[in-house]
Amino acid sequence: LPDGEVVRDLTKIVLVLEYEGTNYCGFQFQENGTTVQSEVEKAVLQLTGESLRVVCASRTDAGVHAKGQVACFRTGSRHSEETFLKGLNNYLPQDIAVKAAYKVDESFNIQMDAISREYRYYIFNSPARSPLWRKYSYQVVGKLDLEAMNEAAQSLIGEHDFSSFVTCFDESVKSTVRTVHQAHLERKGDLVVFEIVARSFLRHQVRNTIGTLIRIGTGKITIEDFQGIMEAKKPGLAGPTTPAHGLFLMRVNYPGPFRSE
Amino acid sequence: LPDGEVVRDLTKIVLVLEYEGTNYCGFQFQENGTTVQSEVEKAVLQLTGESLRVVCASRTDAGVHAKGQVACFRTGSRHSEETFLKGLNNYLPQDIAVKAAYKVDESFNIQMDAISREYRYYIFNSPARSPLWRKYSYQVVGKLDLEAMNEAAQSLIGEHDFSSFVTCFDESVKSTVRTVHQAHLERKGDLVVFEIVARSFLRHQVRNTIGTLIRIGTGKITIEDFQGIMEAKKPGLAGPTTPAHGLFLMRVNYPGPFRSE
Repeated sequence: LPDGEVVRDLTKIVLVLEYEGTNYCGFQFQENGTTVQSEVEKAVLQLTGESLRVVCASRTDAGVHAKGQVACFRTGSRHSEETFLKGLNNYLPQDIAVKAAYKVDESFNIQMDAISREYRYYIFNSPARSPLWRKYSYQVVGKLDLEAMNEAAQSLIGEHDFSSFVTCFDESVKSTVRTVHQAHLERKGDLVVFEIVARSFLRHQVRNTIGTLIRIGTGKITIEDFQGIMEAKKPGLAGPTTPAHGLFLMRVNYPGPFRSE
Repeated sequence: LPDGEVVRDLTKIVLVLEYEGTNYCGFQFQENGTTVQSEVEKAVLQLTGESLRVVCASRTDAGVHAKGQVACFRTGSRHSEETFLKGLNNYLPQDIAVKAAYKVDESFNIQMDAISREYRYYIFNSPARSPLWRKYSYQVVGKLDLEAMNEAAQSLIGEHDFSSFVTCFDESVKSTVRTVHQAHLERKGDLVVFEIVARSFLRHQVRNTIGTLIRIGTGKITIEDFQGIMEAKKPGLAGPTTPAHGLFLMRVNYPGPFRSE
């Protein structure tokens, strides 16, 4: 080693994050506008003095909320998991919080190791708007036919080419084939909750899926139309893209526990 | 009748209101600061041209939310219930909404006819704060002993002098005796939900009650201490007053349906 050079062991840290997306331009860093990533990186800088890059498991768009986003970075600092948890929460704004922090093995890959991502979409299904749910749900006035919507949702399950469920063609995406494990709607009073679990999702896939399901629920299209949309494999065919503020990233699942010890 | 005088039939209208209390100085009109009442009166003025007074069933303090507040006014206008519902929602801000509107008999008394008021208080019982619940719950870090809290809550039920549960003596209040029908706590994940139902409440009674119950739940006082506080009948003895943003007026119950026809 040249004189003066110090080899520092880097530790990989995983954070479980909750955030209200209302005031953010999504998770990922952008030139203009505040993102969850830039806020977490700022907090890490304040806690450790390190200017580093934080990567997430499932990118959320502007306005989307998260109950259980997972993020990861490598640090030269020697802080305990407890210090990362409390210290970062101390520097983060009130609409972002670290729920848990773990030291993980260097081999851990936050995106490739994830076995599934769970999203929820909240519909407020009532003629009267709700002040308390307005930031966390999308209002649909007419009573939705959940039976028809659930029947269509069943056809999403399994491995399919979801080309019709992206808003536009993106040549950086190698494959539009995705595997959906679960897709189900449930009524809870005035709320209709859509839960969808997949290995991973295409951009806008969840919001274009629920947008199409709502068209079934309001009788605008049939279940056969829905299957036709799936089979056409044509970007922009599904939708409309429902508003971001009804969407929550609930959880990212990994095969084992996070802790490396 | 003197010449030119017109006797107008007034119609009594009842509104069921939902609001997020975050940005309001409570329900009732105040010289300084925006209140829910002033917003509703402004919307009525825009819809009917009438400058009138709106009365509520259960006054909520600054920052307290409501899922089912009930409000009442008399109007000379001939609008249908449907027009009041849609018209007022059109003029009200996004954090206040009319959920239902009814024409009621002149004899209806919004405060005296109410048989019970239902309140909920949400505690976020976790060491990590919650961005999504921060405006709708009060965080308590240490794990609460719900069994002890529920045992104490049982002693609230029935007719009692709740003097110890007001923050300070108020000579305008004729009696400090109130009848509590239900008082119960339940854990739902990280949330602890306190439900209390009474004929009516003293000012700050719910927040001073949950404040005292939290002290039992964290082991600061015993159930015997709690009973001692109740029996002392001394204003300011209970508490502390928990923050307003965890409190929701859920419902006001009346013996019959609202509709007059």
